[in-house]
Amino acid sequence: MPPRSAPDRLLAVLDAFDHDHPALTLTDISRRAGLPLTTAHRLVGALTAWGALERDPSGVYHVGLRLWEVSALAPRGLALRQAALPFLEDLYEATHENVQLAVRDGAEVVYIEWISGRSAVGVRIRVGARWPLHATGVGLALLAHTDPEFQAAYCTGPLPAFTAHTVTDPALLRRMLAEVRRTGCAVSVRQITDDALSVAAPVRGAGGAVAAAVSVVVPADGIQVPALIPAVRLAARGISRRLGWRPA
Amino acid sequence: MPPRSAPDRLLAVLDAFDHDHPALTLTDISRRAGLPLTTAHRLVGALTAWGALERDPSGVYHVGLRLWEVSALAPRGLALRQAALPFLEDLYEATHENVQLAVRDGAEVVYIEWISGRSAVGVRIRVGARWPLHATGVGLALLAHTDPEFQAAYCTGPLPAFTAHTVTDPALLRRMLAEVRRTGCAVSVRQITDDALSVAAPVRGAGGAVAAAVSVVVPADGIQVPALIPAVRLAARGISRRLGWRPA
Repeated sequence: MPPRSAPDRLLAVLDAFDHDHPALTLTDISRRAGLPLTTAHRLVGALTAWGALERDPSGVYHVGLRLWEVSALAPRGLALRQAALPFLEDLYEATHENVQLAVRDGAEVVYIEWISGRSAVGVRIRVGARWPLHATGVGLALLAHTDPEFQAAYCTGPLPAFTAHTVTDPALLRRMLAEVRRTGCAVSVRQITDDALSVAAPVRGAGGAVAAAVSVVVPADGIQVPALIPAVRLAARGISRRLGWRPA
Repeated sequence: MPPRSAPDRLLAVLDAFDHDHPALTLTDISRRAGLPLTTAHRLVGALTAWGALERDPSGVYHVGLRLWEVSALAPRGLALRQAALPFLEDLYEATHENVQLAVRDGAEVVYIEWISGRSAVGVRIRVGARWPLHATGVGLALLAHTDPEFQAAYCTGPLPAFTAHTVTDPALLRRMLAEVRRTGCAVSVRQITDDALSVAAPVRGAGGAVAAAVSVVVPADGIQVPALIPAVRLAARGISRRLGWRPA
């Protein structure tokens, strides 16, 4: 392993925590971060004193409240979610289906918010989850509005499949992206799971650039797609206006 | 300034960001963190590479998406919020007033979630905000269920006032806490602002300990308090059940 700087070692401790490992012992952290136990002990102590980690009575560490407070300042995290929440709630009330808000991070989509109905279709998505852009409605809505060089590189790169329906043909993906730009709406059918489709629309920030995407996920054998498109576009425009966007 | 360890210097960079300073230049960070510019530059570079900070085209730094993703794992942050959100939404639908979820951190209450109606009373509260325990409904609900030593120490400590109605008398505060335990509900009247009161109830975790509190904030000249108490208690019990609590 190459030598790492002091900041990188501290951040490696935070990297040890993920959705499948939200609670770790000191030994777990040492192993997952690739750090000697004494180093891990010292760094975990500093992070716990600051509040980035919390230790429960059994000696297990969790991510702490102080980190959550700092991260609430992220313009693409909680701040975006706060602006969008009323519109997501209205979209949920209107559809009673899974409603999602996502942003792009490189070649992936990251889910910022997700409202799920008890009767809504099961989805493989959670807050903080990541998927490749081409496989989801929000991802297609975001990818379609990246710069042409990024799109060209993405379309010719590896396009992993999750079902038999995931688009893996670059030419087809390029046509789908052009359609998204033409209609202002992206439809992704059975790409992540065989039983669901999503309808998504881009959210624009004050400067007009696409900052996020909003979507509804419904059973793939439903016939509601045409009816959902106006509702999803309306929610996306509402969030965009709240973020300071004005139509040309 | 005392010499600081490498982890403390890195965490001081994160501390430079707060609600009033969500966007900082490198010079701002250096000054607010008390670090030489070259040190700040190196640490900001490491944090930006990892994704804890993001640099916009004008050179201004914000808290980044990666930190938000890690913090989503905090059991007392986003995870608690996710469990509570359906109940908070129902409480909002039932009342159309400000609805809040908060946890205790030492002698302070920290707001985890907050749903605000357009017509609801103006409040001085935001997600991530902190207030002393004695001055808010959620704070009283949380303080009343801390261990007796903590309560005794809190009641005799300084009790800062925000309005002429803030409780600053230790004996009165002790009587209010006993009343909270007796009724299962806390009412805080005009303690933060002159025009609002809050009705709060404790949320219990799987082990039965109080883990959070939920409240509704309404105009202080309203007469809805008796009507709000059952709704707030119901929401608190619903969240408690979702967290694994079972009535004795």
